[in-house]
Amino acid sequence: GSAIGQTVDPDQAKQIFGVLPRIAENPQNPVTPEKVALGKSLYFERRLSKSSSISCSSCHDLGMAGADGLSTSLGYRWQLGPRNAPSVLNAALEFTQFWDGRAKDVEEQAKGPIVNPKEMAATKELVVQRLKSIPEYVDAFHKAFPGEKDPVSFDNTANAIAAFERTLLTPSRFDRFIAGNTAILTEEEKQGLNTFVSVGCTTCHNGVDVGGGSFQKFGAIHKVDWLKDLGRYEVTKNEADKYVFKVPSLRNVALTAPYFNDGSVWSLEEAVKTMAYAQLGRTLTDAEAKRIVAFLHTLSADPALVVPPPVLPPSSLSTPKPMP
Amino acid sequence: GSAIGQTVDPDQAKQIFGVLPRIAENPQNPVTPEKVALGKSLYFERRLSKSSSISCSSCHDLGMAGADGLSTSLGYRWQLGPRNAPSVLNAALEFTQFWDGRAKDVEEQAKGPIVNPKEMAATKELVVQRLKSIPEYVDAFHKAFPGEKDPVSFDNTANAIAAFERTLLTPSRFDRFIAGNTAILTEEEKQGLNTFVSVGCTTCHNGVDVGGGSFQKFGAIHKVDWLKDLGRYEVTKNEADKYVFKVPSLRNVALTAPYFNDGSVWSLEEAVKTMAYAQLGRTLTDAEAKRIVAFLHTLSADPALVVPPPVLPPSSLSTPKPMP
Ligand code: HEC
Ligand code: HEC
Ligand code: HEC
Ligand code: HEC
Ligand SMILES: [Ca+2]
Ligand SMILES: [Ca+2]
Repeated sequence: GSAIGQTVDPDQAKQIFGVLPRIAENPQNPVTPEKVALGKSLYFERRLSKSSSISCSSCHDLGMAGADGLSTSLGYRWQLGPRNAPSVLNAALEFTQFWDGRAKDVEEQAKGPIVNPKEMAATKELVVQRLKSIPEYVDAFHKAFPGEKDPVSFDNTANAIAAFERTLLTPSRFDRFIAGNTAILTEEEKQGLNTFVSVGCTTCHNGVDVGGGSFQKFGAIHKVDWLKDLGRYEVTKNEADKYVFKVPSLRNVALTAPYFNDGSVWSLEEAVKTMAYAQLGRTLTDAEAKRIVAFLHTLSADPALVVPPPVLPPSSLSTPKPMP
Repeated sequence: GSAIGQTVDPDQAKQIFGVLPRIAENPQNPVTPEKVALGKSLYFERRLSKSSSISCSSCHDLGMAGADGLSTSLGYRWQLGPRNAPSVLNAALEFTQFWDGRAKDVEEQAKGPIVNPKEMAATKELVVQRLKSIPEYVDAFHKAFPGEKDPVSFDNTANAIAAFERTLLTPSRFDRFIAGNTAILTEEEKQGLNTFVSVGCTTCHNGVDVGGGSFQKFGAIHKVDWLKDLGRYEVTKNEADKYVFKVPSLRNVALTAPYFNDGSVWSLEEAVKTMAYAQLGRTLTDAEAKRIVAFLHTLSADPALVVPPPVLPPSSLSTPKPMP
């Protein structure tokens, strides 16, 4: 036995988390069917990378809950990155992007990996040259960005991909509970929710993405001895930002091991216990931790998201060759 | 102007090529819905590779007509292979597998890349250990191989993947022409067919896959000076087999550049001219070559094949970790 905490009913849950929208809108980059169709192709388009062998999908596989199942991701020439790939599912809802919040939204974020020498390793010019060499893409850009004289641009590539990402929101059983269906969760899952709230996880993991709404220090109460990444500090150079990271969304968390910004923890139960201790100074009992883990499983996409893949247009003779 | 050759009507075409079946059956490995569903997941399953980052789909992307758009493929630790990845589309219909025919069917072929140190670099034991650690896969193997006490095996992994591949047949506009719809091809495409037959391409590119039915020397009439790969010789050690390769299928050829066993030719027109000269001792006019290229475009999947991707089950704590 252990403290379960008072019962959290759907209305209280709605106060804490809110209601998952159908699409993560961005007035600056309206989500239109044409932009989403183009963005989907570009999301799977390996020719956005120098080697023509790496796409967004390589590290954010929609069949693997939008991540890659690795501790840290593999990029250009098999270079191992420093950080764990978060899921792209529901990412567009978050207040900022990347573990250190260095991009303000998915539009800005999408530019990063394409020109990151350790990831897709392309240049803006190479991307535009490749896309302009493929007639079907030129047509698709004109349809997605009507009225623009020269729509095939690096920015529009990111905007189209971002529009696609803005559709990747995954309703879960927990969302049905928030909507009033109390039978959708098991007794254990409900107790897990109660514990999740009562021990204080929702201090940081709140809002529609169960996180993704603020920066917090990892090691707020007790220092995390194995943690090396300085997080937000690398962006702000502000001492107070050392070990400060965006609070990650816990949607689909049961499907996106390994955990934390370096993907060093494979067990969700261990991650939960680490959190309780490092962030709340609390040592959970096994029963408490297992209950919370049961609740976290209710945050997985239900039904699972199945995105029909694009059929990609062939290169033309003027398409710059792959550079592996 | 140039010789177009006598008109080839649907019935004559049916004599030369035959009718594309719906599925490429194999009595030794019956294609059942359960096996195909499991095989589809395994086709996209990166955890069949040592690094957990490479799957069949990495080099045979169904959104890229079943190939990877590279001259030769990139494998484990970015190792560049010696040969061009053929399309898996329609491959199951061919009389043998691999450019040098070293595997008799797709069941035998599927085992190759999984344990090839330059490709997926796994071992049979690692594959079985990973799959047995994932409950959803154990269930799926029992469903796909009912009656077997211990169905989760390396052989059954290949059998399931092969069953999925046996469903990847792509009807084209040309198949509709063979069925009697003469309006489906343009005048130029019909002339291309006539030329394709009259100059003698169908001596080797015949049958339901427009190839894939025999071994032939690349350089049958004129030596191909840039060709290094000894082909079938490496399997048989028979002098006569030097530079002998399986005649590739030309289905989807307009979508699977670059061409030849080393992926060294990006232009389909150039590949056609090379063929005419090296295999038939004939120098095609530009008009003849362009007409044949127009015909080859009618062999592309129509409608394009769109396979709903699988949702892959998460690892468990006992799943052997990725080894990048
Ligand atoms: C080589 C691996 C790799 C590739 C390719 C890649 N990503 Fe990422 N992605 C990552 C990693 C690792 C992070 C976390 C990096 C960080 O926070 O510093 C990340 C972060 C993100 C985030 C932020 C998620 C969050 O919750 O903060 C989004 C969104 C995203 N990627 C989308 C994309 C898109 C779109 C593309 C293609 C244009 C792409 N990624 C290509 C590995 C990759
Ligand atoms: C003070 C803020 C705070 C509190 C309280 C908090 N967390 Fe976190 N949580 C974070 C931050 C920040 C991270 C990212 C840590 C990192 O950099 O890897 C995180 C990460 C996680 C992760 C890993 C997610 C992933 O995808 O890698 C899980 C699981 C998690 N928290 C669960 C919990 C649980 C359960 C509780 C309550 C017992 C809790 N958290 C309390 C801030 C908090
Ligand atoms: C790292 C790249 C890579 C991976 C991974 C890979 N293949 Fe291949 N595949 C190739 C290459 C290159 C060839 C041609 C090799 C040869 O003929 O020697 C080939 C040949 C084939 C063929 C023969 C086609 C023909 O027309 O002869 C089939 C079928 C096939 N692969 C299916 C698969 C399956 C199924 C998987 C996963 C179990 C897989 N491949 C994984 C690169 C790859
Ligand atoms: C004597 C047998 C033979 C004849 C005749 C022949 N081919 Fe081929 N064809 C082959 C072989 C063998 C290959 C594989 C060569 C290699 O190893 O790359 C091939 C490859 C090709 C390719 C490249 C396919 C790919 O996916 O890489 C094309 C295109 C092609 N042939 C078209 C033609 C055309 C058009 C003609 C008539 C002008 C023709 N062939 C006549 C045997 C033949
Ligand atoms: Ca993760
Ligand atoms: Ca090819």
